[in-house]
Formats: sequence, structure tokens, C-alpha cells
Amino acid sequence: MLSHSQIRHITSLKQKKFREKYDEFIAEGEKIVLELIQSNYILSGIFTTIPGTKACVEEAQEKRIPVYEITNREMERISGLSTPGPVLAVVKIPPAVVTSQSTLIRSSPIDRRTSSLLLVLDDIRDPGNLGTIIRIADWFGINPIVCSENSVDQFNPKVVQATMGSIARIKVFYRDLVSFLKEFQGTIPIYGTFLKGENIYTSHLNPSGMILIGNESHGISADLHPFITTRLRIPSFNEQPGAESLNASVATAIVCSEFRRRYIL
Amino acid sequence: MLSHSQIRHITSLKQKKFREKYDEFIAEGEKIVLELIQSNYILSGIFTTIPGTKACVEEAQEKRIPVYEITNREMERISGLSTPGPVLAVVKIPPAVVTSQSTLIRSSPIDRRTSSLLLVLDDIRDPGNLGTIIRIADWFGINPIVCSENSVDQFNPKVVQATMGSIARIKVFYRDLVSFLKEFQGTIPIYGTFLKGENIYTSHLNPSGMILIGNESHGISADLHPFITTRLRIPSFNEQPGAESLNASVATAIVCSEFRRRYIL
Repeated sequence: MLSHSQIRHITSLKQKKFREKYDEFIAEGEKIVLELIQSNYILSGIFTTIPGTKACVEEAQEKRIPVYEITNREMERISGLSTPGPVLAVVKIPPAVVTSQSTLIRSSPIDRRTSSLLLVLDDIRDPGNLGTIIRIADWFGINPIVCSENSVDQFNPKVVQATMGSIARIKVFYRDLVSFLKEFQGTIPIYGTFLKGENIYTSHLNPSGMILIGNESHGISADLHPFITTRLRIPSFNEQPGAESLNASVATAIVCSEFRRRYIL
Repeated sequence: MLSHSQIRHITSLKQKKFREKYDEFIAEGEKIVLELIQSNYILSGIFTTIPGTKACVEEAQEKRIPVYEITNREMERISGLSTPGPVLAVVKIPPAVVTSQSTLIRSSPIDRRTSSLLLVLDDIRDPGNLGTIIRIADWFGINPIVCSENSVDQFNPKVVQATMGSIARIKVFYRDLVSFLKEFQGTIPIYGTFLKGENIYTSHLNPSGMILIGNESHGISADLHPFITTRLRIPSFNEQPGAESLNASVATAIVCSEFRRRYIL
């Protein structure tokens, strides 16, 4: 049985200030929890409504992660989902990600020598979008992702959920994007997605570069525009006036797909 | 001021059975409501917390749509959003869409003579996914969409929201997909997205065809497999074992982008 303080602790992790206080976040669902167990993340505990038969409970026990059997009622209390699954994990936020500035900006996350793409997200606010973008990055082998400091927290439960386990593999850093882009200016192409720009299907795309994705409503902030070397546009094929834009994660998917299609095949 | 029965009526429209009973649905947000006013949809009324200055209130008045000024508190009661916007519309479900079978299956929604793509969705359950796919279809000029009968309802408020107004332009039909695909078998290529199949980037893609997208967890139902003429796969570029799949709306976006890229440019 869970104590009141355990329940209070776990539910507090739905809020960013408590995730920062305890350096922990929650992840739900068998697939996501299993992938976290198999990753470098350290799990503080696993809470399950189903006794030891499930794959992730077995793996957790092998790795000496404490497993707590709880009732459905208790799961409903600690879960953030409207229909809770059978497994919830409390996971340590790795120290590298906690480190907020300085150190990591020096160990630049992009390798200037090899073909590599980097996703840079300016002020993505919707947790579903960030989670979906992390999953897209995982699919297209783009790692890490750099977010502006006002973007939604990667350890927000809805982000973790939408990554479908990709959170276990993709690193996400939060940076002041003006100083971050300044550091790379002139060394690597910086692509930005806009409603007006070069047609992405016919434009020259470098195998290495940064892909800058803007906020859901306002696009890329004006103070980042000077750093952009190529403005790309996903052309609309609607002959009548139609959709004015694509969802941020959908645009990211199309752009990543087009960059990868050109250079890895 | 809204009467109790008005509030009860509007909130009931969040449920499918009442949308079917009253042939009405709700749409929220200025952009979506404005696009509905400008479309062929018939609006029963507009509820706004802001007096007549806004564009969609003016357009509504021009079109003689009743406009009700309501308080923020009333808006909170009728809205389905956690942070309600200033405008909510009650919209008539068009009779063509209400007609559940027979008539429309005869007036086939795909033109066999011209270059045209049709999206066929097998059991899409997540409202955000369906809404996003409608928005993608609008961007890529793909209209209509055919859904299996167990797919989420297009007039679910979360679907309407996620379309960002594209619901005003894209027609969505619900059909028994086995009999629907049977009708087209042998006349047009039917593409299905799978984890194993031809690499979409290098596969021959016909300018006309159906693109079949599967359920979020289970993919395309086994009983539809015999109708598929080409199995397509979006290749993963992750060299380590990574994401096992892409979100259904993301996969749809990449597939539509690739089809359109090849033939319209």
C-alpha cells in the first residue's frame, strides 16, 4: 500500500517546480517504462497494478529497481492519465540535463565534421507537439534536440507520454537560442521553416545543419531570423485557399523526412 | 444570458449521441468559427464573450447568424477547452454527412479519370490524430477522407479543434472499408503504410490512388490487407534500435508529402 506522503510525492511530479526540486519525473505505460529501464536513466521505483508477470516488472527486478504493487484505486490517484495503464515509473532526471547552462554549451551538441542534423525548437508550448517531435527525431536519427528556455519541459508527463519511449534515447537541452545560434553562425547552415521561403522539395539541403522550428502560433521569433541562412517552405497543394499552416510536429516530420531522403539513400 | 436549457443543449453536443440526435456540433476559437461561417456549413448560433468588434461576430451578423453575448463564466460552462476562447459556435451537421450508407457510396468520392489521391483511415481513434490528418489533407489538397465506421467522430470537439479550421473544407465520410475497398479493387492502386514494405522514397508512386492509414496501435486491419496493392514503409534512419513507429498523423504527413512532391512539381 502507498503512504499518503508517497502519493503526494508522486503526484507533485506532475508540476515542473517539484520535478526540479526532487530531480524526478513520472513515466507511464509498459512500453515507455520498459524502454526507460533498458536505457541509462535511473529509476527510483516502479508502481504496478499487476503482479510480477509483466516484462517490465521482471526487468526492473533484475536491475534491482524497487517494485511496488498497488491497487487500481491507488494507480488512479497517482496517474496523470484519464485511463491509467498498469505501470508507472518514477525516474531520476539525469544530472547532465539538470545542468542548466555553461558546461554543455561548450561541449557542442553538433559534430561539425560529420553529416549531422540538429533540431532546434523555438518556444514549442504544446506537450503533445514536443513529445511527438522527440519521437520523430528518434525515427530519423536526429539527436540531440535543443529547445529555447521557454519551451515546454521535456519531463512534463504529457511530453513523456507522447514520445512513446523515445525520451529514453533522445537528449533534449534547453538553451538561450540567441547565444546558442551565435556560437554556430557562419560554421553550419541554419534552416528555418516559414510560410514563405524556398520550396523544400527543390531547394539545396546540406547534409549537416540545424533545422529551426518555430512556435505553434507565432513561428520563429524575430530575434532568431538574422541567424537563418535558408528559409524553407513546405508548399501547399491546395488550389483553393485552404489550411494556413501545418501543425508544428507535422512540419517537423516533413522537413526531417526530406533532409534524410536526400542524403542517406 | 443563457438559459439552463441552452447550456444543457450545448454541453450535450460534446457527446456523439446528442450530436446525432440534434445534428449539431460545436466549434471553438475565432479562426475555426470564422472559417465555418465562410464555408457552406450552416451555423445555429455564435456565443461570444466579446462584443461586436471581432471579425467573426461581424461576419456572423452579415450572414444573419444569431449572436449571443455571454459572460466568461457562461463560456466556461459551455466550452470544452481548459482555457476557453472568446467564441463558440453551434454548427449544423450537413445532411450529406448524416446519410450513413447507400447513397454516397454510389457517388464515389474518387475521380478515376484525374490525378487524385484519397486518404482512407482504418480505425483512427485519437481525436487529435484525426483532426491533424484533416488539416494535413487540406494542406496537400486531398479531399475527401474516408474513415472506417469505428473511427473517431469528425465532429468530436477535439477533432474539430485540431483541424484548425480545415473541417470547413475537407469532407469526411464513414464507410465499411471492406465493401468500400472492394468497389475500387483493380481500378486504382491502394497503398498501405506498414513497418515492412517498399521504401517510400524509392518506390514507384502512382499520381492517383488511395492511401490507407492504420490504427494507432494495431496498424491496418488484417481484413483490409488483401486489397492493398503496394505496401509502403517510411524508413527509419536511426542506426541504433530506436522508435518502433511514428504517430499516425506524422506518418500520414510524410506519405502525403512524398506523393505530392513526386507529381505536382
